[in-house]
Amino acid sequence: MTKQKKLQTVLNVPTTNLPRVVVIGGGFAGLHFIKRLDTSRYQIVLFDRNNFHTFIPLLYQVATAGLEAPNIVGPIRKALHGKKNFHFRMLAVHGIDPEAKTVATAGGSLGYDHLVIATGTQTNFFGNAEIAKHSFPLKTLTDARQLRNHLFQSLERLELTSDMEERQRLLTFLVVGGGPTGVEMAGALAELRNHVLKRDYPDSDISLMRIIIAEGSDKLLTAFSEASSEEARTALESMGVELIFSQFVEHYDGSVARFKDGREIPCATLIWGAGVEGIVVPGLAKAAVAKSQYQVDEYLKIGGYDDVYALGDVAQRTTEKWPQGHPGVAQVAIQMGEQLAKNINALAEGGTIKAFKYFDKGNMATIGRNRAVADMGNGQHFSGFPAWIAWVVVHLYYLIGFRNRTFTLFSWVGNYFTYSRAIRLVMEPTLEEKLTEVPVTDPKV
Amino acid sequence: MTKQKKLQTVLNVPTTNLPRVVVIGGGFAGLHFIKRLDTSRYQIVLFDRNNFHTFIPLLYQVATAGLEAPNIVGPIRKALHGKKNFHFRMLAVHGIDPEAKTVATAGGSLGYDHLVIATGTQTNFFGNAEIAKHSFPLKTLTDARQLRNHLFQSLERLELTSDMEERQRLLTFLVVGGGPTGVEMAGALAELRNHVLKRDYPDSDISLMRIIIAEGSDKLLTAFSEASSEEARTALESMGVELIFSQFVEHYDGSVARFKDGREIPCATLIWGAGVEGIVVPGLAKAAVAKSQYQVDEYLKIGGYDDVYALGDVAQRTTEKWPQGHPGVAQVAIQMGEQLAKNINALAEGGTIKAFKYFDKGNMATIGRNRAVADMGNGQHFSGFPAWIAWVVVHLYYLIGFRNRTFTLFSWVGNYFTYSRAIRLVMEPTLEEKLTEVPVTDPKV
Repeated sequence: MTKQKKLQTVLNVPTTNLPRVVVIGGGFAGLHFIKRLDTSRYQIVLFDRNNFHTFIPLLYQVATAGLEAPNIVGPIRKALHGKKNFHFRMLAVHGIDPEAKTVATAGGSLGYDHLVIATGTQTNFFGNAEIAKHSFPLKTLTDARQLRNHLFQSLERLELTSDMEERQRLLTFLVVGGGPTGVEMAGALAELRNHVLKRDYPDSDISLMRIIIAEGSDKLLTAFSEASSEEARTALESMGVELIFSQFVEHYDGSVARFKDGREIPCATLIWGAGVEGIVVPGLAKAAVAKSQYQVDEYLKIGGYDDVYALGDVAQRTTEKWPQGHPGVAQVAIQMGEQLAKNINALAEGGTIKAFKYFDKGNMATIGRNRAVADMGNGQHFSGFPAWIAWVVVHLYYLIGFRNRTFTLFSWVGNYFTYSRAIRLVMEPTLEEKLTEVPVTDPKV
Repeated sequence: MTKQKKLQTVLNVPTTNLPRVVVIGGGFAGLHFIKRLDTSRYQIVLFDRNNFHTFIPLLYQVATAGLEAPNIVGPIRKALHGKKNFHFRMLAVHGIDPEAKTVATAGGSLGYDHLVIATGTQTNFFGNAEIAKHSFPLKTLTDARQLRNHLFQSLERLELTSDMEERQRLLTFLVVGGGPTGVEMAGALAELRNHVLKRDYPDSDISLMRIIIAEGSDKLLTAFSEASSEEARTALESMGVELIFSQFVEHYDGSVARFKDGREIPCATLIWGAGVEGIVVPGLAKAAVAKSQYQVDEYLKIGGYDDVYALGDVAQRTTEKWPQGHPGVAQVAIQMGEQLAKNINALAEGGTIKAFKYFDKGNMATIGRNRAVADMGNGQHFSGFPAWIAWVVVHLYYLIGFRNRTFTLFSWVGNYFTYSRAIRLVMEPTLEEKLTEVPVTDPKV
């Protein structure tokens, strides 16, 4: 039944009689899969390069000092306390050998009976190395903290300089991409300008701060309804955000952004919210992957393999309803994880497996601190303050479940709701931090 | 009256008719000085390399994941909201020219009428470069975060290795220094071992974790009463902390610590709590400084100068009662800051100045989560749970005042008191963080 190396313990994972499921990636999909899997019938080994997972929908809050980083991360070990036959190893997986049925890590290769790839996505700079170097993406906790540090470093520099051009450059924030990331970032920046920063920087003219969204299509939130798209535009404009449509940024050197049509905008901060790509682990056949996503069937199995699955943002499941694949949102990841776990449990029990069907609960995006747009799964749309309340409730629900800590509700709510208190304009000592690189070397087995 | 450059604005600081007080350092002393100074009579310019200040007494909590970093920092600009004629510039001061009465920064030189040096202390490795490289000090927020990251990286590595020697090394924590820092760190580590880590690391034998304090004198807490010193020893021993007295660590290569007498202890973590030294700004006469501290008189004025003062840990004020200078504790810094501000206000009003007299309110140190030792100013001593309650009350009081946020009380208390919830075993992505160095260059004036 198993190809596990019975005579050695690799990575300190015990050898048992149970079939082993290896999961790569402890995000929404991976964690929900693990929670649902019956570990009296399977052993699970989870690999992740971090020992925590991140509540990605709220990264923009950390980036604008609306929440603190610890509010939106949860330790993986804590989330899975008490799960039997579950082993976490903080390692990245470098490769897969589907013939030998092993995964390769810095600590050695581990055999699997079933493999679940749930690695998520990373920022896609479309091959533009200059933009990759100078812009600020927003996919990881590190991204969010670096962006926040840069934001407040820019303001501190502003206080030191009387050169008008330099001051305007430091006060100009260009957000590339009009999807939820761009809309939420721009709204949060506008809130900072309109309500918070003047008190902290009395020597500077904060009203000169420009926030600009540059979007390649002709509208915001292209994945949302027309009504939501239009509401978002109106709301952002009323908050003083400038919108540029049908434009592409081609160059950015850290100082001036240049568009395809030659237009230039001097800006000290360019936030890249314009593209993501799946994180593919080397080793499977080329045919299994298209545009950096694994092609999966209705059982979330990767075509060409009997025992390798993909979940969440890194999986592409195309259907009539979703011809481009399912959206890369948390709900899809969660539902995929749960369905696959139920199916793999069924395999062990001799039960029947079910095809994955996405129950679309809708989409939401906030715009500033008290507005949002919401499309419901049934086609209805609403916006404004009621939509924002709904957004808060939904995110609190998931954040609490995510962090498994009821008390967090109190402190998170407190942080989020109280304007001046929540906005903590603290810059971590990035300038002086000397990080000691501590690579995980091959341990002795 | 003033040597300010009236024809230029340096560092964007406005030129006014008011005499200018330059303060170097926004810690306890600097901030309390500024809060108390009458800025209808003086302009204040504060320089600090960070735009936040750190509640240093609780660094050990961050280092052991008992609190999160944001809980113990406060933005300087927020703490001084609304203070008239107050200007903050996030810059380090490289030097002082007492003849020209200017301070030098990366942004240019600024003139002063009065100069207050409140730079505090940094870790003292006594010239041992090897120990400086491999050990973990605990003086700054960065120190605390690096130590915490290392602690949890060690535990994650532990999970990957079955080599018994390596496992023991990873589980051995040597704390050098038996003062408050060492005692509090060791107590917190013991709490982690005894109450928290087993659940998170079920594949490892956490009971093998060793926590050792190595102290050069023959007792702990040498600045405390005999009773407190003895109580601390008993309490730590009962928690399973090993104590080594009259010993000095001479070598540490990151793997094995070697003492003066030749004894060796393999340990992956050496915490250096054994010495601090004042942060001296170059420029004053050699005679003004002894053992990295500025010599000040009863008015906190540096000998040899009319208008340069020093406060807090970097100042040495020797009296009959304090022949080695006053202790480097927060209370001394706060009281010095307030007294000097009152005196400088008096100068402007033609009032009388007063000599600094330290009102010793006592000393406290926690030992684990529900014990402490406390010496009161009047010579009394108490310990155990009542002392711990007192410690909590005192620190909450100062922390709230420090952060100026009542709501923090709730979240901080919640974090601190709830055992399993408070201990957040999250490791920040230090391994992967690629920090972009953003030096503050000379701005155009």
